[in-house]
Amino acid sequence: MNHAHTECKINLFAKQPIGVFDSGIGGITVLKELVRKMPGENFIYLGDTARLPYGTKSADTVRKYTLQNMDFLISRNVKAVVVACNTASTQIFDTTYKNIPVYNVIDPGAKMAALITKNLKIAVLATRATIAANSYTEKIKFHNPNAEVLTQACPLFVPLAEEGWHDDPITNLIAFRYLQYLRAAEVDTVVLGCTHYPLLKLAISKVFGLGVSLIDSGAVLAQQISEDLDKINSAPNLLKAQKTGNLHICLTDSGVQFENLCLQLLSEVTNITPQFETVSVI
Amino acid sequence: MNHAHTECKINLFAKQPIGVFDSGIGGITVLKELVRKMPGENFIYLGDTARLPYGTKSADTVRKYTLQNMDFLISRNVKAVVVACNTASTQIFDTTYKNIPVYNVIDPGAKMAALITKNLKIAVLATRATIAANSYTEKIKFHNPNAEVLTQACPLFVPLAEEGWHDDPITNLIAFRYLQYLRAAEVDTVVLGCTHYPLLKLAISKVFGLGVSLIDSGAVLAQQISEDLDKINSAPNLLKAQKTGNLHICLTDSGVQFENLCLQLLSEVTNITPQFETVSVI
Repeated sequence: MNHAHTECKINLFAKQPIGVFDSGIGGITVLKELVRKMPGENFIYLGDTARLPYGTKSADTVRKYTLQNMDFLISRNVKAVVVACNTASTQIFDTTYKNIPVYNVIDPGAKMAALITKNLKIAVLATRATIAANSYTEKIKFHNPNAEVLTQACPLFVPLAEEGWHDDPITNLIAFRYLQYLRAAEVDTVVLGCTHYPLLKLAISKVFGLGVSLIDSGAVLAQQISEDLDKINSAPNLLKAQKTGNLHICLTDSGVQFENLCLQLLSEVTNITPQFETVSVI
Repeated sequence: MNHAHTECKINLFAKQPIGVFDSGIGGITVLKELVRKMPGENFIYLGDTARLPYGTKSADTVRKYTLQNMDFLISRNVKAVVVACNTASTQIFDTTYKNIPVYNVIDPGAKMAALITKNLKIAVLATRATIAANSYTEKIKFHNPNAEVLTQACPLFVPLAEEGWHDDPITNLIAFRYLQYLRAAEVDTVVLGCTHYPLLKLAISKVFGLGVSLIDSGAVLAQQISEDLDKINSAPNLLKAQKTGNLHICLTDSGVQFENLCLQLLSEVTNITPQFETVSVI
């Protein structure tokens, strides 16, 4: 397993889109950070909404779906694949797939947590499948062997995020139930180890209070990809500023609710209206 | 569309199993009622856990999955198919498929609600997809054209049921939020229009209080199938009492949590330990 992304991974063909996928709406929080950081890039997003969620499914099933999604994005001529789903990221151990660079959302969040913790107590919040895969604990300890990692599966967070109950007393209560023991354990760093969870950041931060860092992998990953791009572009600022890229969103199942929530999230970072398409990845 | 099941539908081959399917654990509440009523029958249950839930997916996708599931059960030589999922039931308009009798969970619940309401105010609680299909309203009005039908999608009920928070203050709060206006509207009959919802019966009944009837389609359906069997068995009681049937449970994705909750639910009605098998239906 390769824990570190030290090399420049994106090469050539600036006009090719960056491919991003998740089971559903969660990965849009990652896409949002990518667009915010690299507004000139073209993106193609795949939401495998016909089979969501992944976080309650077995490793074998998640691996099969992940490979099918990557093959689909590669068939659309992407220059890199971003696995914008933590559960899927636990099943991707290589940094390339069919010669295309692959970025997962676990490596950057794990590395950041290992770097910024002061009291060496880190909490990872994720789906049951991500916790079971143990990837976060392994990767945090790779970067900081002295860190103590506490994990908590929060199965209701995904449906709460999908329901749109983001700033809500019931969500606060559920967050408190899942997380109170982590607060009592005095962790100083909390990894949002599911791409849906940034949507519930307010409820999560209310449990932990000030002084505890919440790590959103999407933002960290966007910074890393942007730096990789800068290394190969001789005039990166010029290139990045030259235009506004396209957003193309593919869904394996059509859904008005998805489209509305997606438009709402992306409107915070871009004026571009994405195109939607229903696709099959099997 | 055939609204009524007036004929005897099950024929011959008593040893053939009755096939039952749902996306996940919800249909086990139906299987439980079937086993309670007909302990001598053999059952094969299919949980399409690799693609659950259905209630948030489009009609086209649900129809495709439903046909694949029925084909799978028929390949296992079942004598009848029970669609133990309300969302899937909205996509099945015929009472036979490839010459095999098909029972859905909407017809019996709708008919019962239409029969027992006194003030003609009926609430249907279901997934977003089931509500969108409008089947309950159509079928209740077929049996009782004067009935007023109020519908409410409760998307968090399925994950709460899967999480096992069945008798829980947070579940009570969520039930109250979804259902308070139905209580205010003074409905006297409430259809549990998703096979997961009987698991939350306690929370739902706390909102409505005494004097409101909660209809669990599984129990009504089991009564109907049992009567159909009696019509063709010359000595039905003898046949039903002669042995304890087998329970075979097929899952499209393996899952320890499913198996544990399933065993717990079925242990209330039988001493038989089901066999589990992981299968593909594509």
